[in-house]
Amino acid sequence: MNIEVALSPELIHLYDVTDKTVVVVDILRATSCMVTAFAHGVDSIMPFADLEECRAMSKQGYITSGERNGEKVEGFDKGNSPFEYMDLRGKKIAFTTTNGTQAIHKSTGAKEVVIGAFLNLSAVAKHVLDHQNNILVVCAGWKGRVNLEDTLFAGALVEKIKTEVKIEDDSALMAQHAYVLAKADMLSFLKPASHIQRLHRLGIQEDIKYCLTEDKYTIVPRLKDKSLLVL
Amino acid sequence: MNIEVALSPELIHLYDVTDKTVVVVDILRATSCMVTAFAHGVDSIMPFADLEECRAMSKQGYITSGERNGEKVEGFDKGNSPFEYMDLRGKKIAFTTTNGTQAIHKSTGAKEVVIGAFLNLSAVAKHVLDHQNNILVVCAGWKGRVNLEDTLFAGALVEKIKTEVKIEDDSALMAQHAYVLAKADMLSFLKPASHIQRLHRLGIQEDIKYCLTEDKYTIVPRLKDKSLLVL
Repeated sequence: MNIEVALSPELIHLYDVTDKTVVVVDILRATSCMVTAFAHGVDSIMPFADLEECRAMSKQGYITSGERNGEKVEGFDKGNSPFEYMDLRGKKIAFTTTNGTQAIHKSTGAKEVVIGAFLNLSAVAKHVLDHQNNILVVCAGWKGRVNLEDTLFAGALVEKIKTEVKIEDDSALMAQHAYVLAKADMLSFLKPASHIQRLHRLGIQEDIKYCLTEDKYTIVPRLKDKSLLVL
Repeated sequence: MNIEVALSPELIHLYDVTDKTVVVVDILRATSCMVTAFAHGVDSIMPFADLEECRAMSKQGYITSGERNGEKVEGFDKGNSPFEYMDLRGKKIAFTTTNGTQAIHKSTGAKEVVIGAFLNLSAVAKHVLDHQNNILVVCAGWKGRVNLEDTLFAGALVEKIKTEVKIEDDSALMAQHAYVLAKADMLSFLKPASHIQRLHRLGIQEDIKYCLTEDKYTIVPRLKDKSLLVL
């Protein structure tokens, strides 16, 4: 059993995912929102790469959610702050974001796709160890580019399960090193990161702090057909 | 003036290189060989992505050189050990490798392409500061995947010029962190790295040690038309 890390969705095609559990991560903020939503009882989340397809789901009773370039989409019910996803018990969500939902779509050939965030880190670790597939962490990044916060999550997962799995590639090693460096104070470590700077405006500081909280929840959303569910 | 890092040639398309100095790096061992060759007086090196095009250059008097999957190519004059490139004064070399020459080909839209290795690190730093273009380090990686040794070079360059340039992306930050962690003993740091393990066979240990030596040479090879030259 081994673990690898695709530091960007642009690198997924280099990995054969057919026998793997893929853990998709977009810490700021798509997968943090998704984990929060399920922890607060949403029924399902359907991820969309395409904005207009997502919008059209409102006619079928879905809550339309997400962002483009970090901003809420006009006409959508919800944006991309995890605090917006705490009052949707029993609802179905249609979700599209700049990076996270694209990463999910690129991962659909995998044996299994699960959603990871610091919020459910230990639960994801337990899940992948229980399932015994090789593991690929897919970092959503920012428009194809590598970002620090998703890499840190990958490193945190590597660090958590390193005695049980073989660290297979250099990206996983690098992510692990970065996490070990950062873990005592992730917020400070991330201060110069590009997306942190992008999000640095009123209110968002609370989102960032929340998204870096480890193990707040124990659920692991999984892709089943075209929707994310907690089974 | 800023610096960014493409951790794999698969990510180059995300960067607009037209106004940039691109520093291509393939520590083990293409760019280390190239720097060594020029330091020992070769006339020029023509990089080829395609193996057979490279082979055909022997008819025009070129020394055919390079590797595929880390092994010397059958019928070629030289392989991919830097120690083979110390006796070619005045010669023209046609060079193809699994990763390094591919990375050069993908970078040809840049304002300027230069060849970086630990062997000429400070010379590259001086060159990019003198030329005042924005900088993109392109790590050759391994068949598209990110590798540790090229990332460490990127980090070393960032670390060397950080007071003069803005660190623009998270890849550059990550590379810098990795280098700072590794620099006291790069050889040990790289021990678990995938390509080091791949090359771990008789003789290659000396290549690795040599390729990690900083500032052995002061030349900076540059791409001019289709050939690398030291101007």
